[in-house]
Amino acid sequence: MPSAAGRGQGQDRRPESEDSSAADDYAKERYGVSSMIQSQEKPDRVLIRIKDLTVEKADEVVWVRGRIHTSRAKGKQCFLVLRQQQFNIQALVAVGQHASKQMVKFAANINKESIVDVEGVVRKAHQKIGGCTQQDVELHVQRIYVISLAEPRLPLQLDDAVRPEVEGEEDGRATVNQDTRLDNRVIDLRTSTSQAIFCLQSGICQLFRETLTRKGFVEIQTPKIISAASEGGANVFTVSYFKSSAYLAQSPQLYKQMCICADFEKVFCVGPVFRAEDSNTHRHLTEFVGLDIEMAFNYHYHEVVDEIADTLVQIFKGLQERFQTEIQTVNKQFPCEPFKFLEPTLRLEYREAVAMLREAGVEMGDEEDLSTPNEKLLGRLVKEKYDTDFYILDKYPLAVRPFYTMPDPVNPKNSNSYDMFMRGEEILSGAQRIHDPQLLTERAKHHGIDLEKIKAYIDSFRFGAPPHAGGGIGLERVTMLYLGLHNVRQTSMFPRDPKRLTP
Amino acid sequence: MPSAAGRGQGQDRRPESEDSSAADDYAKERYGVSSMIQSQEKPDRVLIRIKDLTVEKADEVVWVRGRIHTSRAKGKQCFLVLRQQQFNIQALVAVGQHASKQMVKFAANINKESIVDVEGVVRKAHQKIGGCTQQDVELHVQRIYVISLAEPRLPLQLDDAVRPEVEGEEDGRATVNQDTRLDNRVIDLRTSTSQAIFCLQSGICQLFRETLTRKGFVEIQTPKIISAASEGGANVFTVSYFKSSAYLAQSPQLYKQMCICADFEKVFCVGPVFRAEDSNTHRHLTEFVGLDIEMAFNYHYHEVVDEIADTLVQIFKGLQERFQTEIQTVNKQFPCEPFKFLEPTLRLEYREAVAMLREAGVEMGDEEDLSTPNEKLLGRLVKEKYDTDFYILDKYPLAVRPFYTMPDPVNPKNSNSYDMFMRGEEILSGAQRIHDPQLLTERAKHHGIDLEKIKAYIDSFRFGAPPHAGGGIGLERVTMLYLGLHNVRQTSMFPRDPKRLTP
Repeated sequence: MPSAAGRGQGQDRRPESEDSSAADDYAKERYGVSSMIQSQEKPDRVLIRIKDLTVEKADEVVWVRGRIHTSRAKGKQCFLVLRQQQFNIQALVAVGQHASKQMVKFAANINKESIVDVEGVVRKAHQKIGGCTQQDVELHVQRIYVISLAEPRLPLQLDDAVRPEVEGEEDGRATVNQDTRLDNRVIDLRTSTSQAIFCLQSGICQLFRETLTRKGFVEIQTPKIISAASEGGANVFTVSYFKSSAYLAQSPQLYKQMCICADFEKVFCVGPVFRAEDSNTHRHLTEFVGLDIEMAFNYHYHEVVDEIADTLVQIFKGLQERFQTEIQTVNKQFPCEPFKFLEPTLRLEYREAVAMLREAGVEMGDEEDLSTPNEKLLGRLVKEKYDTDFYILDKYPLAVRPFYTMPDPVNPKNSNSYDMFMRGEEILSGAQRIHDPQLLTERAKHHGIDLEKIKAYIDSFRFGAPPHAGGGIGLERVTMLYLGLHNVRQTSMFPRDPKRLTP
Repeated sequence: MPSAAGRGQGQDRRPESEDSSAADDYAKERYGVSSMIQSQEKPDRVLIRIKDLTVEKADEVVWVRGRIHTSRAKGKQCFLVLRQQQFNIQALVAVGQHASKQMVKFAANINKESIVDVEGVVRKAHQKIGGCTQQDVELHVQRIYVISLAEPRLPLQLDDAVRPEVEGEEDGRATVNQDTRLDNRVIDLRTSTSQAIFCLQSGICQLFRETLTRKGFVEIQTPKIISAASEGGANVFTVSYFKSSAYLAQSPQLYKQMCICADFEKVFCVGPVFRAEDSNTHRHLTEFVGLDIEMAFNYHYHEVVDEIADTLVQIFKGLQERFQTEIQTVNKQFPCEPFKFLEPTLRLEYREAVAMLREAGVEMGDEEDLSTPNEKLLGRLVKEKYDTDFYILDKYPLAVRPFYTMPDPVNPKNSNSYDMFMRGEEILSGAQRIHDPQLLTERAKHHGIDLEKIKAYIDSFRFGAPPHAGGGIGLERVTMLYLGLHNVRQTSMFPRDPKRLTP
């Protein structure tokens, strides 16, 4: 903590006297702890972005706001690294015309992660500055004021938090475990890796909507508080609703389908979905973000499958084009092969997948669902054979799909349903839905579902319903698998699981 | 209901015999009820959009899928109006080479709102066809198959549902009340007015994100299930969370602020917010969509106010440019003055508003909040004086704002906070937030808030926090007020209020 911690008035940044030698301090106006910014004034001062500090700016005097990333005092000098998001620059405070020894001491004592305003001259560096993004320049500090002071003991060190696990294991250097990260998410999210992950995730949402808007889809908003658990009642959170109770929607599916019945034709939505599953795995969350699509088609549900697959391909391409820096940043900490995909997307039938698995020694029935290990094995087999990390599995056995799934017209044991996979893990589940109220009633009865509870659902199809299909994508899974990460908690800013509700 | 309701096989559309005269029916292959589309095949047939049926297509044979909007038999002819979203065309089935009298009868008996595939020749109309969007052409039907049959009794008539209230009142013609609409939302959403409202709403979201992305904002996803009611605990829904309980977020504010403390600098999110308020007014919902913004600033919170106001202005402009058709469609049923706004946006201080109200005869104290009637009156006064439907009210009394609001640096009774208004109703509330943990603690104590419950919130600011401000916009209110509608339930697809949880 800086010893000159006195607060000035307004934005007249006057450090108070540090000790009896203050009177001798010729630089005492040039440093200090600024008073809290309370919008006292609108100064003309322009703050330059650290990423814009390059040799073109050499010898210019600039103002910069950044965090103290590291600081190292060395005799009459203090080297700071100032950080701003993913960018950082070395700043030098050295005793001389502008800085007194008191000022150097003050700078050296500012707690890490504090936010400072610095005035300095941009100087070309004599040699590349390793460890900084701005390698060719450094900042010679003339003034430095603390804008927001961090407490001295950080719950985790940012350098530890970006260290590849293998370095931690082999060299015995500190890494940060997941719970510490998540408990202190505000600091963990400051790392270059986290910044890159969530900028890329923002890009996925943007590309998803951009692509669908171009394809003529309309964005809809569906309610999350619902009166009945439409998919049966298991795994659903209950909400107190005034004097009654309600549920949290496990998916927007009913509402997407109602929009199709209401002639919106092609709809999408992005929003939270809630699953009260007590699953403590690397890929389950109790609340995640669903990227949902529903679309009326003319004659065949593959019209919809093709649109969804193309949407994902446009996302993959867009990420490659626009987020190369972020991908490389994440790769530094979590090395991984680039994500591969084909155009058009590979589509296999379920029976083909079963045959591939059997050939690899797996024993399974024709109508058995894929276990998680078999999903992953299949992913490896498909990658070997077709060289793609993304594919569609079509024509699932009817028995393993929900009651509203349209049966296959030829083989009644199959269905017009599909999953999509990235690096051997499911990221989307979808199907042609039954749009005929009579068949829907039959299928619900067959599944032993209480017809009274799904009456509103079935009634939606009584006044003319176009054939339609759709699917729901898990945003956190797409982010995780595209980047080759191993836990969905890395790609949820504030993850929720059966054991975690904070922060 | 069509009497020839037999089902063909696959997509070989063979109507079964209607009566003993079937043998004489030379057109019997040309009409009928198609079997359910189960993705049996992928025919080459191209379906033309109704909006694309213009005189340029005259004399072409086309296939169209649409709903039977109306039907009227007249001797040997039957006039149908086929509807597709907001577009419709007249179709004529007449006894002749392609259609038998049985076929005309079949067509005339198809229930309204059923979906049909029609093959026909596009013919130039002899005179403008009133009541149809495609006024210059009609379709001479050669084949007609029912794709999805509607039940005969519709719970509401679409024509009634788009009738202006004044016509209903003056001419005694039927209109549809709000509960009937909402109870049968799938049909109500098919009207041209509903289609237009929700296309425009989709546009608001798109313009909001487009503008902010261009300004360098990052989209974030914040959790809706939270462990503690951060804003005190009133008006919050409780959720059963495994063996414990949790709450539904009343706003993403804490999480937006944490992202600012985590250096994302400028963030936005679009998502549901939940308010357990037992308010049964025209503008309150228990679940609505929040368009939220949070932004670090350099020296003055007006930097943020300007960005938010400009974002709204970009939305207003974008709507004018891209959604003129939708605005006009809604205006037909709900006439209203075009929405007016200034550039830059008018910003008044709270004390100026109080002075205007007092001059108009209102008695109110300096630190009193605006009542709803006073808000509306102020809107009218501002419109008269400045000719704008959109303005900012800045510098609210500190006493009427939440504890985390930054006090004004000059007058401690005021605060760095603001609301924004459209047509005299609040659509955004925002403020500079206190980023100093010590002042935040003091203010929370002053408000009598249990410090233990907001510990995580306060701790977020302990490791360096930039000054920041933000605000939350209600999507349904913006849609309602932009279009000059009078109930927020008209602009929520599936509204939730204390008395409505369905559909």
